[in-house]
Amino acid sequence: MEITSDKVKELRDKTGAGMMDCKKALAESSGDLEKAIDYLRKKGAATAEKRADRATNQGLVEAYIHAGGRIGSMVEINCETDFVAKTDDFKSLARDIAMQIAAMNPQYISREQVTQATIDREMDIYRTQARNEKKPEQIIEKISTGKLEKYYQEVCLMEQTFIKDSGKTIKDLVLDMMSKTGEKIGVRRFKRFHLGEIES
Amino acid sequence: MEITSDKVKELRDKTGAGMMDCKKALAESSGDLEKAIDYLRKKGAATAEKRADRATNQGLVEAYIHAGGRIGSMVEINCETDFVAKTDDFKSLARDIAMQIAAMNPQYISREQVTQATIDREMDIYRTQARNEKKPEQIIEKISTGKLEKYYQEVCLMEQTFIKDSGKTIKDLVLDMMSKTGEKIGVRRFKRFHLGEIES
Repeated sequence: MEITSDKVKELRDKTGAGMMDCKKALAESSGDLEKAIDYLRKKGAATAEKRADRATNQGLVEAYIHAGGRIGSMVEINCETDFVAKTDDFKSLARDIAMQIAAMNPQYISREQVTQATIDREMDIYRTQARNEKKPEQIIEKISTGKLEKYYQEVCLMEQTFIKDSGKTIKDLVLDMMSKTGEKIGVRRFKRFHLGEIES
Repeated sequence: MEITSDKVKELRDKTGAGMMDCKKALAESSGDLEKAIDYLRKKGAATAEKRADRATNQGLVEAYIHAGGRIGSMVEINCETDFVAKTDDFKSLARDIAMQIAAMNPQYISREQVTQATIDREMDIYRTQARNEKKPEQIIEKISTGKLEKYYQEVCLMEQTFIKDSGKTIKDLVLDMMSKTGEKIGVRRFKRFHLGEIES
């Protein structure tokens, strides 16, 4: 097993321990990162608390509370520089997207996150619906694919119609900001709480 | 397989479909809720969008943004009545707890959520540390248990020292609110985003 310098760096980032300690810990742990962390903690060379976040991106975390505290959303939007993150335009984008999430309850950021199993399940339902409605067999696939597109537009944040401008999608907003700033901009993750809901 | 009225109610709550449709759907799906939902959607008696949240609790969702958008937290606090949820005291409790989460990065709500595997891993580390420090064998268990208590106080929200009053834990705050209102109060869930962190 090989102790790469990348792995040593990752362990250093996570523990704050010295280079030689990290090399030794990885060697003693057959390269297993979690075991190496435990090794360092046992030696007193690292604490559980020191496992630092690795901030690799710039951007903003923004939150929005809706309906008097019944719905909340939180989102992380990334850009390339702190300069852009601090602009009013970027802050406004983050606020708009947080508001969009609270209002429109997306399940995914983009269609790439939808699993094949979910797609298969949806398509199965659409095909059966079309057959139940006595649609001609030769157009069932086309109808179902159309419904799947509509599904993406409902559940994927980037494809949703922007609540404050029905002529734009969230993706349009992000692309606008990219061309305005010249930076790569992306929605990294989001979370939405609805008071009392059962999380699936 | 039995179709209980609870199951029919759950399906109705989730789909908005009628009672008879739900009973039939469950019978056709051997009582499997997800299959019954698909059955109803295929029949056109339910849509994917209709799967409503079941708001069983009162309370508030609150969020807090820290360090100019680098850290965000969101929390759901439950109580029994909307009346209490709307009081300034309850709003203030929700704000304080959101701020606590942003500042102190808890991993769990309470120690009951810590898995046995995590406890075993921590105890293993504490015992090895104590042995490395040449502590007498008969007190190693006591030292390790003490360290585990300290660990709970660091990673469990309810056991953390309140950032605005070091004489109190978050649990104390919640208990104070319970005795003030006469209602059961609880932190249901929380989420924290730190800009750029890699989620484990």
